Amino acid sequence: MSNGRIRMEDLAARCGVSVATVSRVLADKPGVRADLRAQVRDMAATLGYAMSSGVAGKTAVLVASRAAMVDAARSQFTLHVLEGMQNRAAALGMNLETRTMADDFSDTFQSGDGAAGYLLLTPDSDAQIAFAADIGKPVILVNVDDPMMRLSSVAPCNRTAADRATDHLIRQGHRRILFLTRPGRRTIERRREGWADRIAAEGLSPDPDLVLEVDDWRPELAAQAIHARLARGARDFTAILAAGDSLAIGALIALAEAGVSVPDDVSVMGFDGLPQCALQSPALSSVEIPMGAIGALALDLLRDSLIGGETPARRVELACRIVDRASVGPVRTLPGAALKGVV
Amino acid sequence: MSNGRIRMEDLAARCGVSVATVSRVLADKPGVRADLRAQVRDMAATLGYAMSSGVAGKTAVLVASRAAMVDAARSQFTLHVLEGMQNRAAALGMNLETRTMADDFSDTFQSGDGAAGYLLLTPDSDAQIAFAADIGKPVILVNVDDPMMRLSSVAPCNRTAADRATDHLIRQGHRRILFLTRPGRRTIERRREGWADRIAAEGLSPDPDLVLEVDDWRPELAAQAIHARLARGARDFTAILAAGDSLAIGALIALAEAGVSVPDDVSVMGFDGLPQCALQSPALSSVEIPMGAIGALALDLLRDSLIGGETPARRVELACRIVDRASVGPVRTLPGAALKGVV
Repeated sequence: MSNGRIRMEDLAARCGVSVATVSRVLADKPGVRADLRAQVRDMAATLGYAMSSGVAGKTAVLVASRAAMVDAARSQFTLHVLEGMQNRAAALGMNLETRTMADDFSDTFQSGDGAAGYLLLTPDSDAQIAFAADIGKPVILVNVDDPMMRLSSVAPCNRTAADRATDHLIRQGHRRILFLTRPGRRTIERRREGWADRIAAEGLSPDPDLVLEVDDWRPELAAQAIHARLARGARDFTAILAAGDSLAIGALIALAEAGVSVPDDVSVMGFDGLPQCALQSPALSSVEIPMGAIGALALDLLRDSLIGGETPARRVELACRIVDRASVGPVRTLPGAALKGVV
Repeated sequence: MSNGRIRMEDLAARCGVSVATVSRVLADKPGVRADLRAQVRDMAATLGYAMSSGVAGKTAVLVASRAAMVDAARSQFTLHVLEGMQNRAAALGMNLETRTMADDFSDTFQSGDGAAGYLLLTPDSDAQIAFAADIGKPVILVNVDDPMMRLSSVAPCNRTAADRATDHLIRQGHRRILFLTRPGRRTIERRREGWADRIAAEGLSPDPDLVLEVDDWRPELAAQAIHARLARGARDFTAILAAGDSLAIGALIALAEAGVSVPDDVSVMGFDGLPQCALQSPALSSVEIPMGAIGALALDLLRDSLIGGETPARRVELACRIVDRASVGPVRTLPGAALKGVV
């Protein structure tokens, strides 16, 4: 095995079986004992044998909701994930097709459609995940996880990233940090938990009144919510952490309209790290999700499923990076309301 | 690249560089542009080139706390993780050494000790994790995660597993489920969250009075706590989910001493899935952690760090499995206290 060559002969020798047995296992033919089959597959995955021979020429189908496809035009999140997937597919010699979810979700997965496996991007519901777990082919979840852990998944490290973003604001002196969110998705709930984790860790009170909810990701809804909040009375926060860049952009708009200076009066931080953050006025600090790496790793997980041994399902979360721009600064004015929650 | 052979020539062709360049990058020699270096390493990791040539002969050092080493005698958790690591190290051709944490943690990592990287098993504190993140060699965390996501980690899927275990009890008709825990570690907090998630998802009240805490993992402390709880008044729970098998075993002892029948009066469920669960009376249902797979995957993450491209740190959680034995049964008696939290 010098010089990185991994041959069937090597696998056979390592496993103590014949080359014919290795060949049968890797071709997924019957007639090999289950334990031997598992051993050979595990060894193949460990040594990376099948990286090139086991998946090349196979087809992976990326299934995305219509919303995610529209999102590709609006926020480019999907676009960047797809780019990472395409690069990895090319490297692995796999074909990558994209498909929009069928109106009846069960029609999305067609028997005999030539797909070796599926990558399911941000499905709408846990019922869809449960259905996908049962189709008999490998499915990898992207940007969401399986609440039952039947399927492997890759997503940003939402909870930790929100914790770090909150820490970033606290280090600038902020104590009253509004969390602006569109509740519902489990991934977004994890962002709220990260905000609450850091606030609790600092000995501050996780005031439920600091969670401001809107019904959709559209900036105008966030702007309306911020206007309503400001109209309620004295401003009782010095910073906003939004659960998505689109909400943060809406907050910037409302604050400008209300004559509240960013970051002098209020700091604003987004979440996603989309390219348009740099184009805001002031430029928006945000949590950058490694979108390309998420796409690439999804392909790797599918590859491991196609050739791997018996491994339990995996939930993989990738570290995010805080990108600091002009919208965050040190506290200069204190909030007008009672300083609830200050240590 | 037919038949699974991955050669330097293949990498060079895929990356559009010379074989000499590939060789320099893989040998970690200077004189190659950073972007080319990243590209070659990424391709090598993708194709699994360096699985055999890049890490064979290198040494991984497993660092475990004295407590974890003692634990190897008591609970075998460490032992099973180590077994998975050893098998994977053998398959990768790596050397695996074990080392106990030094009294002064910083002495644990010795410069020039020949370690290519470290596997850090259940470190005691976040300060140790922060130190390890800064030593300049790859470090993989095992059975714990990095709150700041500087280091990659592999651990059981604690939150989901506790959710599934709670669901398992609820499906047997239990509504008042005591969560018996030794609080402190982040991984254990995730188990409490999983219990609370499922209770909330069922529309039950997450009664804080149903969390019973002890100061250590010793069964006798759990037994004392259960005795004290039973002495408090009418029994207000029909099931116990313990955050660790050792606590569940203590609960079984106390219930037997108090003449409470398991599972007729109270169902008991552990967490870890240690072999001794089967030897309890009655045999203990538990959440089985894939300990060997955790050890193996830790080695894979180290391998990826040693040869991989520029990937963000990863938090990997592995699915656990519920093993049902005699200690869990359907509700037969209702708790004596007011049925708080029943829908």
